[in-house]
Formats: sequence, C-alpha cells, structure tokens
Amino acid sequence: MTQVDLYDTTLRDGMQGQGMSLSASEKVRVVRALDRLGVQYIEAGFPASNPKEVELFEILSGEPLEQAQVCGFGMTRRRDVSAEDDPGLGALVSSFAPVCTLVGKTWALHLEKVTRVSRAENLAMIGDSVAFCRGEGKRVIYDAEHFFDAWREDSAYALECLRAAVDAGAENVTLCDTNGSSLPHQIAEATASVVAELGEEAAIGIHTHNDAECGVANSLAGVRAGATLVQGTMNGYGERCGNANLVSILPALQLKLGYRCVPEERLGLLAETAHFVDEVCNVTADPNQPYVGRNAFAHKGGMHVAGVQSDARTFEHLDPELVGNSREVLISELSGRGSVLSHADRAGIQLDEEAARRAVERVKEREHRGYQYEAADASFELLLRREAGDYESLFRLESFRVVMEKREDSGVETEATVKIWVDGQRFLRTAEGNGPVNALDRALRDAITELHPHLADIELTNYKVRILDEDHGTGAVTRVLLDSSDGTDEWGSIGVSENIIEASWEALVDSLEYAFQPKNPGPAESAASGPVRSGLGRDEVG
Amino acid sequence: MTQVDLYDTTLRDGMQGQGMSLSASEKVRVVRALDRLGVQYIEAGFPASNPKEVELFEILSGEPLEQAQVCGFGMTRRRDVSAEDDPGLGALVSSFAPVCTLVGKTWALHLEKVTRVSRAENLAMIGDSVAFCRGEGKRVIYDAEHFFDAWREDSAYALECLRAAVDAGAENVTLCDTNGSSLPHQIAEATASVVAELGEEAAIGIHTHNDAECGVANSLAGVRAGATLVQGTMNGYGERCGNANLVSILPALQLKLGYRCVPEERLGLLAETAHFVDEVCNVTADPNQPYVGRNAFAHKGGMHVAGVQSDARTFEHLDPELVGNSREVLISELSGRGSVLSHADRAGIQLDEEAARRAVERVKEREHRGYQYEAADASFELLLRREAGDYESLFRLESFRVVMEKREDSGVETEATVKIWVDGQRFLRTAEGNGPVNALDRALRDAITELHPHLADIELTNYKVRILDEDHGTGAVTRVLLDSSDGTDEWGSIGVSENIIEASWEALVDSLEYAFQPKNPGPAESAASGPVRSGLGRDEVG
Repeated sequence: MTQVDLYDTTLRDGMQGQGMSLSASEKVRVVRALDRLGVQYIEAGFPASNPKEVELFEILSGEPLEQAQVCGFGMTRRRDVSAEDDPGLGALVSSFAPVCTLVGKTWALHLEKVTRVSRAENLAMIGDSVAFCRGEGKRVIYDAEHFFDAWREDSAYALECLRAAVDAGAENVTLCDTNGSSLPHQIAEATASVVAELGEEAAIGIHTHNDAECGVANSLAGVRAGATLVQGTMNGYGERCGNANLVSILPALQLKLGYRCVPEERLGLLAETAHFVDEVCNVTADPNQPYVGRNAFAHKGGMHVAGVQSDARTFEHLDPELVGNSREVLISELSGRGSVLSHADRAGIQLDEEAARRAVERVKEREHRGYQYEAADASFELLLRREAGDYESLFRLESFRVVMEKREDSGVETEATVKIWVDGQRFLRTAEGNGPVNALDRALRDAITELHPHLADIELTNYKVRILDEDHGTGAVTRVLLDSSDGTDEWGSIGVSENIIEASWEALVDSLEYAFQPKNPGPAESAASGPVRSGLGRDEVG
Repeated sequence: MTQVDLYDTTLRDGMQGQGMSLSASEKVRVVRALDRLGVQYIEAGFPASNPKEVELFEILSGEPLEQAQVCGFGMTRRRDVSAEDDPGLGALVSSFAPVCTLVGKTWALHLEKVTRVSRAENLAMIGDSVAFCRGEGKRVIYDAEHFFDAWREDSAYALECLRAAVDAGAENVTLCDTNGSSLPHQIAEATASVVAELGEEAAIGIHTHNDAECGVANSLAGVRAGATLVQGTMNGYGERCGNANLVSILPALQLKLGYRCVPEERLGLLAETAHFVDEVCNVTADPNQPYVGRNAFAHKGGMHVAGVQSDARTFEHLDPELVGNSREVLISELSGRGSVLSHADRAGIQLDEEAARRAVERVKEREHRGYQYEAADASFELLLRREAGDYESLFRLESFRVVMEKREDSGVETEATVKIWVDGQRFLRTAEGNGPVNALDRALRDAITELHPHLADIELTNYKVRILDEDHGTGAVTRVLLDSSDGTDEWGSIGVSENIIEASWEALVDSLEYAFQPKNPGPAESAASGPVRSGLGRDEVG
C-alpha cells in the first residue's frame, strides 16, 4: 500500500478565505485536532511575521504532538540579499519548526510581469534559499507556485526551477495550481512528467485550488500520477473558491483508491474533526458537505429509503461510520414505530408501545402541517417526552402581548409583555426589543430566570425563517427554526404557524423547555462503541 | 468544435435537496432563465404526479421558449403491467413535452435487493417502455440508474440494459453515477467503453453526483471520454451532497476544453442566471462558488493584488467577464454608473450624471446594509426615480400600530391600525390578519383603495424572509422579498431591517408605490437590442 502524506495549510492558506481569523490559542486547538486525526504535516504560518505568529510558534514549540510535524512557511530569498541576510529566512530557521516550506516562482510570465527577476536569478534564489535552510538543519519542502501554468507555457524552465530546489537539498517539491486554472487531466499529465524526471531524487507533492470546482479531483489526479504528498485545508477553506478540501481527499485516497494516509482507526475521527474546525473558525458547517455533512448520507425519497434498508450499497457510496458520520433516515421518513423507539432509547426516554404509536401519529400529523424535525432535535425529544408522560412543564402562559408602533420618519418601536406562572408564582414582565421575537424572548427570560437563573445563560445562536407556501403571499405558513446553546451543547427547536410570531414563540418555548428537562445520559456516552461517536453530540438525531 | 448539450434537472433532481420547494410559477421562471442561458434540455418533473406538476406542465405547454426542449421524467413500466397500461408512462406520453426521460435499472444488485425483478424482465421493461414512448411520437432519453456501480460489477449486463434502450429507439442513453461513488478515472474508463460500443447508434450522456466532491470533474471526464450530453443542476442543488453543478461544468467545457455548449454571447449570463435561481429557490448564494461567486475573483493577499494589476493571468484562471462575473466587485453588478444609466433608460427614467452618481452611491450603501436588488426590480426602479426627482409618493404615513395578543390555549390575535394621508385626506383603518404583515397589508390597502381602487387588485404572490446574519439569533438583520402581481406583470420589492415587521412594511410599501408609478414602456420592448439581455425581465439588474 503506497503511503500518501497529508499536509494541512488551514492555518496559513486557509486563513486567506474571506472572514477567516483565528487567535493563536485557537490555532493550537486546530493543530491538536489535526495531529489526532493523523495529518503528517501542519503548516502553522510564517514564523515571526507578526506578534500573533510569534506567539503561536512559541506555544507550539512546547506542544507535545503525537506524530505531526509543524512546518514554517516562507518565501525564497529576496533578489537583493543573500539567503543568510534575508530576514524572512532568518526567522524560519530560528523557529523550532523542523520543516521549512519555501514558496518560489516557476512561471516566466510571473517573473516578467510581477517580480521582474531574470530566469537565472530566480534559479539562484531557489537554490540559495533551500541550501541555507538545509545548512541550518531543516527539512525543506519547495512549493512551486503557478507550476501548472508554467508547465503549459515553458515546461523546461518549470522543471529547471524544481531541479534547483532538489539539487540544493529539498526533500519534496510540491506542484501548485495557484490560480486553480487546471483540470484533472492536465494535472495528471504534468505530474506524471515531473515524477518521471525527479521522482527518484525527491518526493512530489500536489497543491490545488477549487476555482474550477475540481480541487479534490485535481489532488486525486496528482496522487494517481505519482505524487505522495497532498496539501490542502480542512473543509476547503481558502481564498476565492477555496483550497483543495482534505476532508474529501482523505477518504477518497484511503477508502476508494487504496492508499494509506492515516491509521485506519483515525479515519473515524474525520467528521468530528471537520466539524470541530468549522466550530473554531466560526463557520457554519455545510450540511451538504461530502462525507461529513449532515445530509451526506440522508435519505428522503421513498425508493431510496427502501433501497438502503435492504442493502445500503444500493444508495450509499460508502459506509458512513468509516468517516465518523451516520446514516440519517430523515425524520420525515421515520414513520416507523421502530425508529421512534430507538430515538427515545437514545434520549433516555421510556416509551411504551402505545405511546410510541401515538408519537408516530403525532409526527406524521405535524409534518403534514409543515414541521420538520431534521434540525429540531429538541422539539422532537419534547414531543416524545410528552407522549411518554415524562414531561414537566417549565411554566404556564397566561398571556402575552406584543405592540409595535411606527410614526412617520421613526423606526418601529417594539414592546412585549408576558404573564406567566412558574412554580405557582405569577410573573409579569415587559421588555423592549429590536423586533417582536427579540422583545418576547427578553420578557420571557426575564420572568423565568427569577426562579431558574441558569436559563439566563442560554444563547439563541441561530434564527431561521422559512415561508412554506410562499405563493400565499403574507398569509402563508411560516416555519421558524431556532438553534440554542448553553456553551457546551447545542439544540434546535421548531415552530410552525400562519403567524410568524406564534411560530417563533413556539420555537422559543421549546428551546427553554428542552434546557429545563432533566439531563439524559446523552448519546455521546451511550453510543461510545468507538472514538467515532464522541462529540458529534448536537447533530446526532438520526 | 464538438457540441455538448446541457440537460438541466434542477426542477426534478434538484428539488430532492433539503428544504427545496418551488411553486409552479416559480418553476416557470426558472425554465425561462435556463432557456435564455441556452440550456438545451430542461427536465420539468413527473407530469401528473401531483396537482402542482399538472399545473406546471399546463403552463409550460403554452410557454414560448426560444430554444430549450422540455423533458418529462418517468420510470420504466412496472413489472406487472404493459407499457400501454402503465399510468406513469401514460401521463408522460399525454404531456406536451417532446422528450421523455425514462429512468431504469442497470445494476444486478439493485434488481436482486430492491426491485426483485429478473434480469430478463428488466430488459423487457426497458425495451417496452422506450418503444411505447417512441410509438407515441416522443424523443426518448434513457437514464441508466447506478450505471457505474453496475459496470464495475457486471459490465456485460449493464451494457445489455443500454442496448435494450437503444434498440427500442432511445436517441440517448445517459450513464448515471446515482450514488456519487465514482471518481473521474472510473467515469472516463466506463464512458469510453460505452462510447466505443454504442456511440454510433446513440448519443451518450453523463449524470453525476457530488458525494466524493468530484461531481464536476466526473462530468468533464465523461465528456472527454465521448459523452455529448451533461445532466446537472444549477448551483449543484440535489439530494445528499448535490448533483453535478452545471454552473461550473458549462464554463469548463466551453472556455477551458473548447467544446461548444451555448452560443458564446450567452455565457455572459451565467452568473446572473445562477444567482437568479438561488434567489427563486431562497438559497443564499455561496460567495465562494466557482466562476460566479462574489469571491471567485476577489483578491486579498497583497502579492495577489499586485499580480492581478500587472497581468490578470498571474492570479486569475480566466476573465471573469466571460461568465458574467467581475473582478473584486464586492458590491454588485450595479455599482457602475453605466449600468445604472442603462437601467434608468430601460425604465424610462431621465437620470442626469449627478443623479446617476448619487444612485450608485445609494445602491452601494444599501447593499452594504443587506439590500439586494437582483430580485427586487420594483424597489430598484423606485430608488432610481427618487434620485431622478421623478417620483410621486402614493401616500404619507402618519403612524401604524400592530398589536398581537395570545392567551393560554388560544391562538395569536393580530390587529393593525394605519393612519395615512392620501391626496391630502387622512385615512384611519384597522384590520385583523393571520399575522402582523397580513394585518398591515389589509389595513393599508383598505385605506389606499378608497382613492385608488385599482390597487385593490394587486396580489402579493410571494413572501420570502431571509435572516442575514443568522448567528445573531433573534437580533439579526432580516431581508424580506415580496413578489406582487396585477395579473399581467409581476414585480419584486425588498425591505431590510433588524425588525422583521419594519422590513416587511418597507417591501409592502414599495410594491404598492411601484404599481402606482406611471407605466413605462416596459423593459421587454425597449431592451430588445439582443436576445441576451432581454428577459430575466424583472430580475435583470446587471
């Protein structure tokens, strides 16, 4: 089995993506997660390029990693100084990172138009820089910027650049499709030629971007042509359309193409790691993401569900558990009593046969009215609890009132008043808000937290509104989905009504009711058959 | 130049995506946009599978399309009836659609485990069904479900299935990677073999999914191996991880690989069409989407920006204008003074240089706050009119008030009161509604129609709500899009506010104001300089 190494550049190239920014300590958390997954090389950034990077390399130097090598990134020396006097290279070799990744030019157009350096001078810059880092005891990877454009225009010179790096001691030359201009067959051709020329002397790497929506396929084409290292980012973060997505490359290489990348048992950490990095980067996980998305193994159409039940291969390209994901028969198809029972079981709810039957009926009836429990695990669990009789209400509503007023040339003023009973006491509270739901949330929380102060910490993290039958104009049915968090767990609740305020109220109440229910053992522990399950936590409804 | 046809299944397979749902009239708008882009085949759905589909085929039968062929989708006959007696096939041949796309089995595992039909019987089902549709005068495309899995397991039988379709008169057999299990080299190999076997007798199509993040690359591999038709969806909508994304396939085929798909001048409509379909489907456009995303040609790193300035090729894989996108247009297509002027011209608004400059500033500033005029032509035109001074207000708001009350065990009661001045007279009206916006609409309309009775006929056909920064919980900014119709024309208006009621009010007022403005000659006639620009109609902003 051929070994292919993973080289993660989430912390450097990934941070070029719009809106990306991580603190040094967040970066360290990402490094730990990547190390655990089995990624061999982790590019942490430019050492000493700014105080945040200095801090990061400082922390990382003391971080005990299981197996990953930290790489510092830098450019070949400037044209006007020697490698020894180049401050960037100086910082690189002074850092603890055992691997230096040096990016340099390979494309004549680029030399002419951007850097204005002669071809010979560029070769010297590459050779000097690699030799300097080697002389300081570093391992060196040479990133050949714009390699594939260069190859199409002047393959002889592109190859000379690579050879300059290899002759100076680079153990790996990585071919970069910097603009994402290439398609898989072009990557395959050029990579195979380079492997034929230099494959005996150095390892060949591949670094692609997703501008043609071929980032993953391009990386796979590079490996099939002989590359043994793949550079990419978690979840495909990166500038423009992103870098090649390691989360999709890893399972394709290991499960579909038979290469070895990470220890087999680590692959099951893939989904968890991908979601964790999303979380740290404050990126909403893409539910449709290949392999690890919540919908990646979701089945909806009746025919598909029947197929999966008789033989999963009929509608699944691989076993979701191998990548730490799970099959999601959408709750809309859960009309079966068996699956309601298994859900109840996982949530620690005792549901007898008759209650299960009622719950199934209730789900069907509600889905018909527009409810959808796929992203509303809290509301689904409350529904089961109610049918099980295992349900204590947090409060009783006497009434609420929302008043919104607008005068010429002023904004809308919103005020909500709630009257509720909690543990036999009546609370009346009024609050203002920047909208009706916000005002209601504030008034309700104000009333409830008097007796249940811990509910004050719940944050509404996400509020989604969907008009179901949009062609009924403003009289349409509205579905509100609300995500909440207490800092540890996240849960989703739902409300449906012709009246958006009523729908929002329903979701709001479910969110707080859910937080108020006794904690069940939780799916993480009860399903801890392997490391695969630990932590998906909140998304695990199916 | 080899011709490769595009086959769009957004309206059928795309609708399998989570949360996707379109009304018949929304689907018609998508059909028009695809026709204009130059897509050759548009799969509209299963004729007669439900009342919405019946309505859709009814409308489409009278819809004058420029060049696209509408396809009806259905399955091969059931095992227990003849093709003539199969209700699904009956509906298909009775529909006006000139092309029938029949999906059928090719994979032995599937026959054994799911359909429980013998191999011979399956061949008969395919042949009978194709022959029946041909006999009724239809063109037939045969979609070979699970073709690539079938090929890997038993290529002889898979080929027999295709041959059964071709022998019975199918003009095209399309190879489907139904589970998205395949990688590009597998697609290439199998497709090339099929082309060698059947390429003389029928056209070969390719239909892939994105489960391995290779949907686009797989389609390209199929075409390079000889397929001449590509099935996919706009923006890659579809079940699980989505279908192959036509928005990325089209420019790769036409600009990178030299195939001919759509007339060259239509390619410039790509970005606009992709965003339009997102808008209709209430999907937030992916800013990182290849080719058409807002970030696809955005440059961040200093070195990149310098490179682009000296020669765009150094950091751009193609000229963004070719696909209707632009470099670093972070605002939108509307930011240029030239395009504002041409829009004003089309709407019959006299806009001088200074007013145009102000309008551009206003658009930028509003887009920064979350407005988006692509589907809100009415609001855009009103903005231009205001800057032109060519604007007469329909009414003046003194104030409105909305009160919502809920008591234990009853629904929310909603009442709105508006006080407005119309033509110097004051009107005070109160109305109830099933939600705050509905009540406001009724009260406002009641007040206005006293003096402007024709505004009573305006129907609010569509009401969409999108929370822009969902992670701000219930305090997030809300964008409301409202479609209105007077029976002849349709127009869109927009409102943005932290307060959903205020945003809705703004869109409501714009809708009525627009209807009240003097009629302009109409974009369809005045912009008839070329087919390219004439017709996203109300959505045409760029």
